Amino acid sequence: MPFDFISEERRLTQPEELLTYSYDATDHRGRAGLVLRPVSKDEVVEIVKEAYETGTPIVPRGAGTSLSGGPVPEEGAVVLDLTLMDRIIEVQERDRLATVEPGVVYGRLNKHLESHGLFFPPDPGSGSVCTIGGMVATNSSGIRAVKYGTTRDYVARLEVVLADGRVIEPGTYARKSSSGYDLAGFFVGSEGTLGIFTEITLRLLPKPTHYAAARLAFPGAAEAARAVGKIISSGLNPAVLEFMDKNTVQTVEKYMGLGLPEAGALLLIEMDGFDQGADLLLEKALDLADAEEVERGTDRQALWRARKAALPSLARYAPNLVLEDVTVPISKLPEILERIGEISKGYGIPIATFGHAGDGNLHPTFLVEERDENLEEAMKELFQATLSLGGTISGEHGVGLEKKGFMGLEHGTSLDLMKKIKAELDPKNILNPGKVF
Amino acid sequence: MPFDFISEERRLTQPEELLTYSYDATDHRGRAGLVLRPVSKDEVVEIVKEAYETGTPIVPRGAGTSLSGGPVPEEGAVVLDLTLMDRIIEVQERDRLATVEPGVVYGRLNKHLESHGLFFPPDPGSGSVCTIGGMVATNSSGIRAVKYGTTRDYVARLEVVLADGRVIEPGTYARKSSSGYDLAGFFVGSEGTLGIFTEITLRLLPKPTHYAAARLAFPGAAEAARAVGKIISSGLNPAVLEFMDKNTVQTVEKYMGLGLPEAGALLLIEMDGFDQGADLLLEKALDLADAEEVERGTDRQALWRARKAALPSLARYAPNLVLEDVTVPISKLPEILERIGEISKGYGIPIATFGHAGDGNLHPTFLVEERDENLEEAMKELFQATLSLGGTISGEHGVGLEKKGFMGLEHGTSLDLMKKIKAELDPKNILNPGKVF
Repeated sequence: MPFDFISEERRLTQPEELLTYSYDATDHRGRAGLVLRPVSKDEVVEIVKEAYETGTPIVPRGAGTSLSGGPVPEEGAVVLDLTLMDRIIEVQERDRLATVEPGVVYGRLNKHLESHGLFFPPDPGSGSVCTIGGMVATNSSGIRAVKYGTTRDYVARLEVVLADGRVIEPGTYARKSSSGYDLAGFFVGSEGTLGIFTEITLRLLPKPTHYAAARLAFPGAAEAARAVGKIISSGLNPAVLEFMDKNTVQTVEKYMGLGLPEAGALLLIEMDGFDQGADLLLEKALDLADAEEVERGTDRQALWRARKAALPSLARYAPNLVLEDVTVPISKLPEILERIGEISKGYGIPIATFGHAGDGNLHPTFLVEERDENLEEAMKELFQATLSLGGTISGEHGVGLEKKGFMGLEHGTSLDLMKKIKAELDPKNILNPGKVF
Repeated sequence: MPFDFISEERRLTQPEELLTYSYDATDHRGRAGLVLRPVSKDEVVEIVKEAYETGTPIVPRGAGTSLSGGPVPEEGAVVLDLTLMDRIIEVQERDRLATVEPGVVYGRLNKHLESHGLFFPPDPGSGSVCTIGGMVATNSSGIRAVKYGTTRDYVARLEVVLADGRVIEPGTYARKSSSGYDLAGFFVGSEGTLGIFTEITLRLLPKPTHYAAARLAFPGAAEAARAVGKIISSGLNPAVLEFMDKNTVQTVEKYMGLGLPEAGALLLIEMDGFDQGADLLLEKALDLADAEEVERGTDRQALWRARKAALPSLARYAPNLVLEDVTVPISKLPEILERIGEISKGYGIPIATFGHAGDGNLHPTFLVEERDENLEEAMKELFQATLSLGGTISGEHGVGLEKKGFMGLEHGTSLDLMKKIKAELDPKNILNPGKVF
C-alpha cells in the first residue's frame, strides 16, 4: 500500500474525507487520491521520496483558503495536509525572529507574539484561519501591505524538502545577506511547485501601540482614487488605505445594514505608531483627502466591519462571483477604475470593486451566475488593461489554476525561464503539477 | 575582428587600457582580453549574442569598487564596461519609481532625486562613485540598511539580457505581485553570472527632512554591543547605528587627528524623520545606550567624518589589509566580537573591527602585510564562527572570487541548486565565469 508508513488515522482514503481536500475558496474542484497528514519533516521527506520514486503528484495544502485554485488536487494526486505541523518552534525576541512550522495559523502566531510586543504584519483577509505555509507559498498580503509589504519581505530563512527528498535551508537568521543567489526569496510565492516548506523563520516588527482610523466618503470612484494618490505621494505612510466602490457599499448595506453613507465611493484609512503622532498623521491625511464626509473611528472595529463585510456580502448577492486581484501603480488607479467601469458595461457584467487601494491592489469582483466565455473575455480585457498600465495580474492571491492561462501575457520570455527552473528543480513534475504554468 | 560592430573608441585593446579594467578594490588581479563600452541595450544584445556563439566569457563591470573580486576578469575575458549607459530614463514621482540605466552613479541619482523629495536609501561606502548596476549585482547596502534594508528591497523591475541574447523584463511597476516566481529578486545579487542588466526600475522613498545624530563612547566592545542590542530591540528604528572598535578608533585618530575620545569602542547613531520627533527618538536611544560619553551631532558631517575615515585610515596603516563582511543576528554581536578578539590573538593578526552594528554587519579588517595560509585559516575560523551563530559570510559585498571557496560551508545542498540554475540559464558559462561558485 503506498505511503503506508504514515499511520492510518493520518492517512485518509475514504471518499467523504477525500472530498474535503478537493477544493479551495474558488469554484475549482479536483479529486484527491489520498490525503496524508505528516507531523514532522522526516515524514515529509519519506513521503516525497516515495512520490519521487513512483512519480506520484503531491499537492501541499494549508487551510485551503486559496483564491487561485492552487491547492486543488489534480485527479488522483496525493494531498499533503500540513496543518498538523503547527508548532511555534521559537521566538527570538531580541533578534525579532520567529521560527514556525508551516501549519501555524496566522492569527494564532500574532496572538502568541503579543506578549513579546512583536507582530508579523502581512494581514490577509483569511488571517484568522490561513496558515503561514500557505502565505509563504503565495507571497500573500492584505490590508497592511501598503505600509508593511508582503510575506516575502519577512521570510528570513526556510527549511524546504526538494522534489527528490533532499532538504535545504536557504536564507539566514541575519538581517541581510549578499552570499549567493536568493533562494529563500525565490521559494516564496512558488505555490508548492518547487519544494515543500517544513520550517519558516520570519522577521517580525514591534507591534504599534497607537492607532487612528477614519472612514471617508466621496462622490465617485475617481475622487477617491485621486485622494489615494495624494495621500500616498505625500509620504504620510498609512498602515491601511482601503477602497470600496458604490456597488460594494450598496451590497454591504443591503445585507448588513451598517448605516454606511450613500457614497459614490468610500476610503478607510488607518495610521499606526507608538504614540499620539498617529492621530496627527491621520489629520494630515484627512486634510489632503478632501472628502465629502469623514467619520473618525472612535470604535475602530466598527469602522472595519464594513470592509470585512465586503466579500461575504457580495457572495450572498452572487454566490458564484469571481474575485479578481489586479494591481497597478498608484498613479494609474483612476484609469483602471475607469476601465473596469467600461468592461462592466461592455460585457454586461455587474462588477463591484474594493481592495487595497493604497498599494494599487484592487479586487474587481465579477457578479456572475456562472463562468462562461463572456466572463473569460471580460477578465482577459481586465488583465490586458492592467498590464498596459504597468501592473500585475495577481497582487496577492497567486496564480494557481485561475491565472495560468494568462501568465504568458504578463511575463513573455520570463515565463520560459520560470518553466526551465521548475523543470530543473522538479524533473519528474511531481510537486503541485499543473499549477502556475 | 571580434565584436567589430562596436566603434573603435569604445572598443579598447591597448595593454594600458586593458590594465585599468583588470582589477577592483580587492587585491585580486585579472587580465582583460578586450574592453567593450556599449551605449545601448541593442549593443549589449549584439555583444552577448556574439559571445554566446563564440563561447567568449563576458564580465560586466560598473565602477569597479567591488570588495569581492566580482568584476575582475579571468585571463582573456571581454570586460563589458557599462558606465556609458548612464541615463536616468524616468522618475515617476507619484509612483515613487525611477528607471535608470545600469551605469548611473548612486550619488548622482540621489542628487537628481532631491528635487522630487525622494531618495534611494541603500547607502554604500562607495556611493559617490559606484553604479546602480553594480549595487543590484551585489545586493549592496550600507549604513542605512539597519532601517531601510538592502538594494533588493528597492528593485521593482529589471531589463536583463540573458546569456543567449534574449531580453526579459522581470518584475513590475506595481508595488507588489504574486504572479509567478520572483525572477527580478533572484537576479539581484547574482553578480553578473545570470544576465546583464540594461535597465533598472527602483522603488524610492520620501527623503527625510530632519536628522539627529550622536557619537557614544563605551569602555569596551562588549558594552557597545549590548547597547546596540537594547536600541534595536526597543523598536526605536535608528536610520544609522555604526560601530568602531578601539583599534579602528586609534588608527583613525593616528592618521586623521579628529579629536576622538579615548574609548574602548564608539557607536554612531542617527535618527531621521519628517519633524522634530527625530530629536526625541535620539534622546530615547541615548537613555537606553548608557554610554560613558555622548557627543550630540550639532555638525552631522563632522560626526560622520570619523566613520568615513575608518577604511582609508586602516589602509594607510596596512595597505594590503583584508576587509571582511560577516553578519550575525543582533543578539550574537557580543559573541562574534569576542570570537574576533580570540582569532586575532590565536593567529597573531591585528584585526580592527568596524561596521553596521545595527543590522549585525561587521567588517573585521585583517591588518596583514600579505595573504598567507595563516590568514586563510584565520578567515575560515571567522566564517565558521559566523555561521555557527546563524549568520552569513557576506552581508553586503558579495562573493566574487573572495568567498567562493566558502560557499559550501554556508549553503550546503543549496549550493547545488544555485549551480543547477546557473547552468540552466547560462549553459555555455560565458557570464562572469568563475565567480560566486
